[in-house]
Amino acid sequence: MGEIFKGIAKVKYEGAGSDNPLGFNYYNPEEMIGEQTMEEHCRFSMAYWHTIIGQGVDMFGAGTALHPWEIGTDPMEIARVRVEAAFEFMQKLNIPFFCFHDIDVAPEGRSLQETFDNLDTIVALLKEKMEETGIKLLWGTANLFGHPRFVHGAATAPNADVFAYAAARVKKALEVTKELGGENYVFWGGREGYDTLLNTDMGLELDNLARFLQMAVDYAKAIGFTGQFLIEPKPKEPTKHQYDFDVATVLSFLKRYGLEDHFKMNIEANHATLAYHSFQHELYLARVHGVLGSVDANQGDFLLGWDTDQFPTNIYATTLAMYEVLKNGGLAPGGLNFDAKVRRGSFEPVDLFYAHIAGIDAFARGLKVADKLLRDQVLESFIKERYSSYQQGIGYDIVNNKVGFKELADYALKQEQISNRSGRQEMLEHILNRYLLEG
Amino acid sequence: MGEIFKGIAKVKYEGAGSDNPLGFNYYNPEEMIGEQTMEEHCRFSMAYWHTIIGQGVDMFGAGTALHPWEIGTDPMEIARVRVEAAFEFMQKLNIPFFCFHDIDVAPEGRSLQETFDNLDTIVALLKEKMEETGIKLLWGTANLFGHPRFVHGAATAPNADVFAYAAARVKKALEVTKELGGENYVFWGGREGYDTLLNTDMGLELDNLARFLQMAVDYAKAIGFTGQFLIEPKPKEPTKHQYDFDVATVLSFLKRYGLEDHFKMNIEANHATLAYHSFQHELYLARVHGVLGSVDANQGDFLLGWDTDQFPTNIYATTLAMYEVLKNGGLAPGGLNFDAKVRRGSFEPVDLFYAHIAGIDAFARGLKVADKLLRDQVLESFIKERYSSYQQGIGYDIVNNKVGFKELADYALKQEQISNRSGRQEMLEHILNRYLLEG
Amino acid sequence: MGEIFKGIAKVKYEGAGSDNPLGFNYYNPEEMIGEQTMEEHCRFSMAYWHTIIGQGVDMFGAGTALHPWEIGTDPMEIARVRVEAAFEFMQKLNIPFFCFHDIDVAPEGRSLQETFDNLDTIVALLKEKMEETGIKLLWGTANLFGHPRFVHGAATAPNADVFAYAAARVKKALEVTKELGGENYVFWGGREGYDTLLNTDMGLELDNLARFLQMAVDYAKAIGFTGQFLIEPKPKEPTKHQYDFDVATVLSFLKRYGLEDHFKMNIEANHATLAYHSFQHELYLARVHGVLGSVDANQGDFLLGWDTDQFPTNIYATTLAMYEVLKNGGLAPGGLNFDAKVRRGSFEPVDLFYAHIAGIDAFARGLKVADKLLRDQVLESFIKERYSSYQQGIGYDIVNNKVGFKELADYALKQEQISNRSGRQEMLEHILNRYLLEG
Amino acid sequence: MGEIFKGIAKVKYEGAGSDNPLGFNYYNPEEMIGEQTMEEHCRFSMAYWHTIIGQGVDMFGAGTALHPWEIGTDPMEIARVRVEAAFEFMQKLNIPFFCFHDIDVAPEGRSLQETFDNLDTIVALLKEKMEETGIKLLWGTANLFGHPRFVHGAATAPNADVFAYAAARVKKALEVTKELGGENYVFWGGREGYDTLLNTDMGLELDNLARFLQMAVDYAKAIGFTGQFLIEPKPKEPTKHQYDFDVATVLSFLKRYGLEDHFKMNIEANHATLAYHSFQHELYLARVHGVLGSVDANQGDFLLGWDTDQFPTNIYATTLAMYEVLKNGGLAPGGLNFDAKVRRGSFEPVDLFYAHIAGIDAFARGLKVADKLLRDQVLESFIKERYSSYQQGIGYDIVNNKVGFKELADYALKQEQISNRSGRQEMLEHILNRYLLEG
Repeated sequence: MGEIFKGIAKVKYEGAGSDNPLGFNYYNPEEMIGEQTMEEHCRFSMAYWHTIIGQGVDMFGAGTALHPWEIGTDPMEIARVRVEAAFEFMQKLNIPFFCFHDIDVAPEGRSLQETFDNLDTIVALLKEKMEETGIKLLWGTANLFGHPRFVHGAATAPNADVFAYAAARVKKALEVTKELGGENYVFWGGREGYDTLLNTDMGLELDNLARFLQMAVDYAKAIGFTGQFLIEPKPKEPTKHQYDFDVATVLSFLKRYGLEDHFKMNIEANHATLAYHSFQHELYLARVHGVLGSVDANQGDFLLGWDTDQFPTNIYATTLAMYEVLKNGGLAPGGLNFDAKVRRGSFEPVDLFYAHIAGIDAFARGLKVADKLLRDQVLESFIKERYSSYQQGIGYDIVNNKVGFKELADYALKQEQISNRSGRQEMLEHILNRYLLEG
Repeated sequence: MGEIFKGIAKVKYEGAGSDNPLGFNYYNPEEMIGEQTMEEHCRFSMAYWHTIIGQGVDMFGAGTALHPWEIGTDPMEIARVRVEAAFEFMQKLNIPFFCFHDIDVAPEGRSLQETFDNLDTIVALLKEKMEETGIKLLWGTANLFGHPRFVHGAATAPNADVFAYAAARVKKALEVTKELGGENYVFWGGREGYDTLLNTDMGLELDNLARFLQMAVDYAKAIGFTGQFLIEPKPKEPTKHQYDFDVATVLSFLKRYGLEDHFKMNIEANHATLAYHSFQHELYLARVHGVLGSVDANQGDFLLGWDTDQFPTNIYATTLAMYEVLKNGGLAPGGLNFDAKVRRGSFEPVDLFYAHIAGIDAFARGLKVADKLLRDQVLESFIKERYSSYQQGIGYDIVNNKVGFKELADYALKQEQISNRSGRQEMLEHILNRYLLEG
Repeated sequence: MGEIFKGIAKVKYEGAGSDNPLGFNYYNPEEMIGEQTMEEHCRFSMAYWHTIIGQGVDMFGAGTALHPWEIGTDPMEIARVRVEAAFEFMQKLNIPFFCFHDIDVAPEGRSLQETFDNLDTIVALLKEKMEETGIKLLWGTANLFGHPRFVHGAATAPNADVFAYAAARVKKALEVTKELGGENYVFWGGREGYDTLLNTDMGLELDNLARFLQMAVDYAKAIGFTGQFLIEPKPKEPTKHQYDFDVATVLSFLKRYGLEDHFKMNIEANHATLAYHSFQHELYLARVHGVLGSVDANQGDFLLGWDTDQFPTNIYATTLAMYEVLKNGGLAPGGLNFDAKVRRGSFEPVDLFYAHIAGIDAFARGLKVADKLLRDQVLESFIKERYSSYQQGIGYDIVNNKVGFKELADYALKQEQISNRSGRQEMLEHILNRYLLEG
Repeated sequence: MGEIFKGIAKVKYEGAGSDNPLGFNYYNPEEMIGEQTMEEHCRFSMAYWHTIIGQGVDMFGAGTALHPWEIGTDPMEIARVRVEAAFEFMQKLNIPFFCFHDIDVAPEGRSLQETFDNLDTIVALLKEKMEETGIKLLWGTANLFGHPRFVHGAATAPNADVFAYAAARVKKALEVTKELGGENYVFWGGREGYDTLLNTDMGLELDNLARFLQMAVDYAKAIGFTGQFLIEPKPKEPTKHQYDFDVATVLSFLKRYGLEDHFKMNIEANHATLAYHSFQHELYLARVHGVLGSVDANQGDFLLGWDTDQFPTNIYATTLAMYEVLKNGGLAPGGLNFDAKVRRGSFEPVDLFYAHIAGIDAFARGLKVADKLLRDQVLESFIKERYSSYQQGIGYDIVNNKVGFKELADYALKQEQISNRSGRQEMLEHILNRYLLEG
């Protein structure tokens, strides 16, 4: 078919002064920020499921999305046209990566074998389009939560047949991800949790989840897949409790089962806030533990208790996120994947453009502000000074493990009044505002 | 002084039919539940800070509590009478344990040395009363959050002098706990967290927290304190984020710093729900990891966002908690400590009795129901059957690590339709109700 | 077709001792509680949409429900068999009422006229079954939230054509409800709210909502429909903010537009808690304002932020709810409608029975406990005594409006120390436990 | 005494480029925004209780604040110096208004008469300073929540003596507010609510609250106080449920008791979000109902469940707030009162300056952005167009009440497919970002 997003030209950088809603105000891909271009810093990615597949369904209503590419009734034909739509969309927005679940791109067949065959067909088409456009695969994954067979979990199902079936699907998804040069592979365990403890053997389920991940590691090695494995924490929804609750929980799990060398985290903003952490907190915690792998760039609504997956437009959040990314030395091989969906009321194709532009510009501006904050060492010098007592005297001895309770008690008993200094939270928030507003 | 709680006799077991609000309906200390008495199962403990010290202050109002024992103005004299009140109270309620922070029992002095001297004086008195009454110390701890010096934390303070001072206080508290035969020592890091990441070096703070705990382990060894170390998770309040967020977070922390052999958890119901976990979840998770150490028995209000520390009266919560305790093989050397305070509007001395009776009876009934559920294997058999596919065939191979993705995929490709069974949540909830109501 | 729920006999009252999960432990329809039977007190109702239609879909997965009655592909034929299933189900569970949305019972046609014709066809069948079985319609309503045309609201849509279309649907639903002798008509405004204020004229939307309701009142009068109008508050979901947020908000709205004489409330437990009120609070507030009309009997999960619509099994909640119902002098012409769905993992037909039995027994037990509490005047006498100062002296003058600030100040200036009494929350919670457990 | 805030000069407007943390970047009092100066638009006010009295206490720790003006032990002498500190502070920050509770400015005496005498003494001093400096009183109020006598409420206390006492205090506070030319009088009912329904007569308490407010209206008339009465909604804390839950609840209450002509609302940002509304929502709702009276300018932390009363620094919130203020035609006689406290860790006197500067600049920037949005009619034209169907045809008939269900059904039955348009949320959020960042 011909052009799908008719009447929408390639979106360009037009500067902050432009009021063209189909131009970028802040995202200028080639602009250098430090030693890399904005494009290299951001590594934006389109989420196939939301942008190409998502219908605007919610728990109380049917899909609203107008998708001119969804014509005909043959699932494989629809799948092919979706590929066209996806690549035209990414090209027009200059998005260099995409991500997908196996069944996003190809329909399930009547048998597992047919499902795999469908997938192979479309993967060949994807590969062709990728070569043609230079667009790359940020990560692949398998959807182990949508079908009724996963009602009680996949790797944590009480039914061993489901575990086996899930293994087959991940095996295939790994092969496909390798085939497409995917730089990462993500595990989001949408049903890996419980709805009630009254019927659950949590110990066995956790053990089985670890077994499953170990098998993935082993199989990746066997086939030579060298992409980064990522786990995506989420505290709840669809299940009441998900085992990959948050970054700290996943760290604990990985350590317990000796998996810590093989996995990093894919951190989603909305999942962070559903776990009652700030987005920055989760990024920071992951960074400190060396597991900040990739980002699902979206935002939630703090007044709502479910995963709204909104496009990220809050500049505070994007600035502090990019601050962590810069301190992490970048995200590669991860990226910023727009795991975000237009609101159900934003149902026209052009809304997909408005929404991605809003998100891209929010992160672009955030990157610039974060970079300036770091270059000026505004927060860094404040923090350095604040903790300076650990660089000499008793503090030096503490961090160098030269003293114990006895020595410290001797020291304390001799001390006069302890003198603390203000943490200056309000001053720092004011400075952040100035940087944010003045760019 | 003479009797403090005048007109209140020793509270006795009177059976479910009694409507005496100063008698127990369900708690019959000598009654055997399985192979132990109710007293041995429950190991109830009074929290010195709430019951003896707490004034009923909140953020919007002054203390309301009427404490007939708080007379005079000499802090040491007040401290002495509080000891009298505490032991009379515990004896009248037949509570076999208590817990305290250092400064609950003795006032801070003008110097650290004087603080220690004050403590030694009162500890001698406590020891005397303990010997006299047979009441024991469940755990001791140091209050490292109340004084302004801890405004930015104790072990995680940006000021090394504060770290040293905190070390001296814990050293002393350990000595005192040992002196009194305390069976555990608790760390609740009320200020070990941050209020804003703009001024915080989270990496250093986490490292320092670990250093501090390692020093405690070393010092306990040095002085021969063999009680169990416990960490008490709480997600927030007073700080915006506390490092000991929940059981999983603490597990991750302990593993990271090689401290996992030295610490178990002291799990508080209200802290669990503030972290958006059920009380049972936290107990279960701790049990599965072998770190279920002790319990702070209280409850929160799900409609309020702060630590209300209410007396535990919800039978669902106490039943499922005791279910985990029984599956854990008991709590000893831990116990059920009423870290709970009467509402500000319950300001009369007798309310302290009503409140403890309500809590004790709720746990006693919960114990009996949990025991019956276990004896009848109601949930256990359902769960065993539910996961039975892991006891033969492909499931057996999975849990015995005999297969990988390749074998599982071969198996799955040959499978017909997967057949799942209902999880029966509503039926199980109904059965739980019947057990709960019929006792 | 023949029997649909094969192998399941009529569910009977078997007493608390029975462990038959397909028998009632507490619900004995003919048993007198005060001057009415349990059946008359409870007026249980089945929700057509959840029990007969609901597929077990959630935001992350397809339907799981096994509905043996859903065979064939002709929508009208499916609709007919659903009627059979519904009445067999209600008869087997002895449920005397049901509720439905227009499109629950009959499919939308290609035109509005065809939709109405479909509805008429099925309504005739429903009427027949109702006469045959004696089962009655508690309330009818129109679904104005599911179809994409309602994406921005119905009565509050920014598009006047949608307003008109919605009016036509409610007109028809009123006629149908009258035809079936429905005792109430419910408005739940699932899309009557906003997703962002950036694009919303809240003033106009509120005015239009009021206009719509006034038209309904006028039309009911015109056709002689004398059933009770009910508004069902919900704070959010699917929209970010719903105009019928909670009981207080709806009261304010009705008063503002002079609609207060025509509407009562249909109060749903899960909607109450999503608005951060207890279920009892909403019932109590409605009762005090004379607008407690009917109840959607379900429960939420306090740890989750969305409408889980679980079957009500918490005895505390059902007891305190029935307490309000009894104080209200009953619910009629309203009832207890199980607006509740089995968990997605409870996908077998028998789970529908287990779930309703769990809910029915929970309310039956709650009714008995509430009745005993009231007969014994346990709470009532405490409260009467607590406020007794308003029955004489200055208090009498206050509530009889005989004094103003001047007189009260004169009085206060002459008073000695004010003396308050404890609110005894813990004692009352303990008493509630005893009543609840001892029945 | 001499200068209290030593070394801190009068804070001046220095422009966006200045990095002086003791200068304003955006607040330029004389700058015209539309037809008023920024000062006239903003009407900033200092909260006496937080800024002058607040000690930095929290539920887990003692006060940390360093207040050089708090010397000596005579309460009246301390009260006098606090007046000095307050006026020096306001003058240095160019804050034109302040607000206070009676006992903020003068200590309670041993009798009510002595309390009033103390108040008179300090009020005379305040009056003198006000005349000297030109600083005005935005509103006065009485603290009816802090003292133990109010443990169960003031106007809603179960004890008539407490009601009378509270009446005396409000009577006096009204007289004092009048004496000082206060432009408003605020009711925040910190204890007007309940902790448990088990002991509460909610009907009587609501009636009594209304009686109390009616008495205030009557007394104001009697003494010729013509300031605006304001009610400040808050959903909870300190009580579990507060009767003035949110704007809608208060509207319902006022209507029910015929008080709607006498009260507007004082809307606090943090109270809005504790009620799970956005700040803008509450302002908008109040504006639509003509009751937007004044603003308590602060912010909460969406990840915490209590009233943190932080200084307002979020530009999104301040922009959308000022948008509502401008649409309201301003706030006068209300204002923007900084009901905000420095973090406990920001304990130095200079932090009070940093914090107020942060808040003032955030609102100043918000005002400028809001004004530009309105001048450019960015949102207004979008909204006008979005609802344009109500300006002709069937829509016109609807809003002019010319049609009912019958006419609308006739219309709808003739309609073809309904056509909706996207709500464009993401585009509008992007535009908001551009305005916000580009000023």
